[in-house]
Amino acid sequence: MSDDAKKAAAAADRDAFLKTFESLRSELVDAERADGQVQIAIQWIDKMVEYNVPHGKLNRGLAVIDGVRALKGGAACVDDALMHQASVVGWCIEWLQAAFLVWDDIMDESVTRRGQPCWYKSDGVDMNAINDGLVLECQIYSMLKSTASLSQMFRDVTDQTAHGQLIDLITGPIGVVDLSKYTEEAYMPHRDVQDGVLHVLPPGGERDASKCDEICRLLGQFFQIQDDYLDCYGDPAVIGKIGTDIMDNKCGWLVVQALKKCTAEQRKIIEDNYGKKDAECEKRVKALYVDLGMEAVYQQYEEDAHGKLKGIIEGQDMLPAELFGAMLAKIYKRTK
Amino acid sequence: MSDDAKKAAAAADRDAFLKTFESLRSELVDAERADGQVQIAIQWIDKMVEYNVPHGKLNRGLAVIDGVRALKGGAACVDDALMHQASVVGWCIEWLQAAFLVWDDIMDESVTRRGQPCWYKSDGVDMNAINDGLVLECQIYSMLKSTASLSQMFRDVTDQTAHGQLIDLITGPIGVVDLSKYTEEAYMPHRDVQDGVLHVLPPGGERDASKCDEICRLLGQFFQIQDDYLDCYGDPAVIGKIGTDIMDNKCGWLVVQALKKCTAEQRKIIEDNYGKKDAECEKRVKALYVDLGMEAVYQQYEEDAHGKLKGIIEGQDMLPAELFGAMLAKIYKRTK
Repeated sequence: MSDDAKKAAAAADRDAFLKTFESLRSELVDAERADGQVQIAIQWIDKMVEYNVPHGKLNRGLAVIDGVRALKGGAACVDDALMHQASVVGWCIEWLQAAFLVWDDIMDESVTRRGQPCWYKSDGVDMNAINDGLVLECQIYSMLKSTASLSQMFRDVTDQTAHGQLIDLITGPIGVVDLSKYTEEAYMPHRDVQDGVLHVLPPGGERDASKCDEICRLLGQFFQIQDDYLDCYGDPAVIGKIGTDIMDNKCGWLVVQALKKCTAEQRKIIEDNYGKKDAECEKRVKALYVDLGMEAVYQQYEEDAHGKLKGIIEGQDMLPAELFGAMLAKIYKRTK
Repeated sequence: MSDDAKKAAAAADRDAFLKTFESLRSELVDAERADGQVQIAIQWIDKMVEYNVPHGKLNRGLAVIDGVRALKGGAACVDDALMHQASVVGWCIEWLQAAFLVWDDIMDESVTRRGQPCWYKSDGVDMNAINDGLVLECQIYSMLKSTASLSQMFRDVTDQTAHGQLIDLITGPIGVVDLSKYTEEAYMPHRDVQDGVLHVLPPGGERDASKCDEICRLLGQFFQIQDDYLDCYGDPAVIGKIGTDIMDNKCGWLVVQALKKCTAEQRKIIEDNYGKKDAECEKRVKALYVDLGMEAVYQQYEEDAHGKLKGIIEGQDMLPAELFGAMLAKIYKRTK
C-alpha cells in the first residue's frame, strides 16, 4: 500500500470509529431516558460525554481495530459485526481514558486538556467532575453489556491505573520535595490506560499470553516515557495542554534520569526548584536539563527502546508482527 | 428472645463482622505485596482503608447477615462458610459506601465525617482522595473475586448512586439557587448505596423480585429522608458530622416540603438565604423551618411511612417478614 493509500485508509477508519461514537452516545441517552432519569441529568451527562470522550488522538481505541484485523489476517477477514464489536471495545478504552483524565486533571491542578479547558475548569462543573468521572466509568460496563471477560479486563486495567496514579500522587505531593523517592522502582511502568489497550486484543487465551504481556508492558513503558518527555519538551499547541510535571512535583522519567546524572551541586538546584508553583523555578530546572543534555538522553533512550522492541516483535512468530509493529510505528518519534 | 439477649447477639455479630474486616484488610495487603506494589503505596492504601471503611454504623453491612439468616430460616441454618460469604458481601457494601463518602465529602466541601476529619481534609491527602475512592471501589471487585452476578449487582448500585449524586450536584450548585428545580421529581429515591443493600439478599431469583424491589425502594427512600432530616435536626456529636445541606444548597427533603407549604413571602426568605455560605443565612432558614413546623411535618411523614411499610411487609408472605421488619425497626426513629 502506498503512503497516500495508508493515510486514506487511516482517515476512513477514524471516520467510521467516530460514527460508532455517535451511535453509542445516542444509545446511552436512550438508556438513561428508559431508566427514568430526569431530563437535566440526561442533558448534563450527554454534554459531559461529548466534551470529554471523543477529542483525543484516539490511538488507543483505533489500536483495537488494527489489532483485530491483524489477528484475523487482514481487513477482508473482518465482517461488520466483528468490526462493530471491536469499535465498541475501542471506545470503552477511550471512555476509561476520559474518566482518568477528568480525575487526574483535578488532582494535578491542570488547566487545559486536548486544546480546551479541563472539564473541572469548565463552566459550572468544578468538583462535580469527580462524579462525572464515575459516570463515565459506569457507562463502560453499560456499553459492554454482560460480557464478563471484557468487564473483568476493564476492572483490571482500572485497578492497575489507579495504583499507578497513587504512586504518582504520593511520590510527588505538591509543595513537598523528597528526591529520595524519585527512583526507577517508584517510576512504575503500569501507569496508564495505554498499557491495558493491547490486553484486549488476543481473543481468549489462544495466543502466547506471556510474550504478549511482555510486549504490552514495554510498549506501555515506552509510551509513558514519551509522555513525560513531551510534558517538558512538547509544543503546547501540538500536545493540547501545558506541561506541569516540574511544578507539580511529578516523579517523571526526566527528573529520575537527571538525578542519576547530576553532581551534588546540580542536585541542589533540583531540590531548591522542583515542585514549586513558580515559573522562575521551573525555568531553572529546564536550564539544568539543558546543561545535563536531557534531550539527547531521551533521544538515545527512544532509539534503544525502539530497537529493542522491534527486535522482540520481529523475533517471535506467535503474534502477528504487524499488530505490534504498526502500534510501535505509530508512536515512534511522536510529537503529541 | 429478651431485649438483653438481642443486644448481646447484635454485639456478638458486630464483633465477628469486625474480625472479618481485619482479615479482609490483611488479605488485601498480601495481594498488593504479591502484585509487586511498592511499600509506600501499600502503607498508604492500608491506612486509607482503616480510616475510611470500618468506622460507620455498619447497618448496611450487618443487614446482609440478618438477611441471610432470615432467608435461611434462622441462625441454626447458616453454616460458617455461608456466614463468611455474607460478611464479605456486607463489607463490600461498606467499602462502596466508603468510596462514595470519600468522593461526596470533597464535592460537598464537608469537614467532618463519622466523628473525624473527612479523609480529604486529613494530613497530606487533599485531592489524592479522588484516586483513593477509586482504589476503594477497585478493592470491592478484588474481594468478590470472580463472582459475576455479585460484581454486576455492585456495578448496578454504583451506577444508580452516581446518577443520584449527579441530581444532587446539578440541582444544587453551591452559590446558585434555583428553587424551581427543587421538586419532588428531582428529589429522587435512588440516591444511596443503602438502596442497593437489600438487593444482594434474595439468593438468585427464587423470591418475588418485584415485591422485594418495592420494599427496598421504600426503605431506601425512608432512610434518605431521615438522613436529610438529621442533617438539619440531628445532634452533630451523635451523627458524627456537621450538617451542611442548607449552606450547600442541597435539594433535600426538608426544603422541598418547605417550598410546598410556604407563602410567597416565606419563599422569598428561602430564595435569599438558602445555599449561602453564611451562618446567619442558615439561621434564617432554620427559623423559617420552625415557623413552618417542619419537625412536625417530618414526624408525621415518619409515622405514615413506617405504618405503610409495616403494612406492606406484613401483608405479603413471599419474603420473610422478619427480614425487612428488623431492618425497618432498626431505622425507625433513628437519631444517627
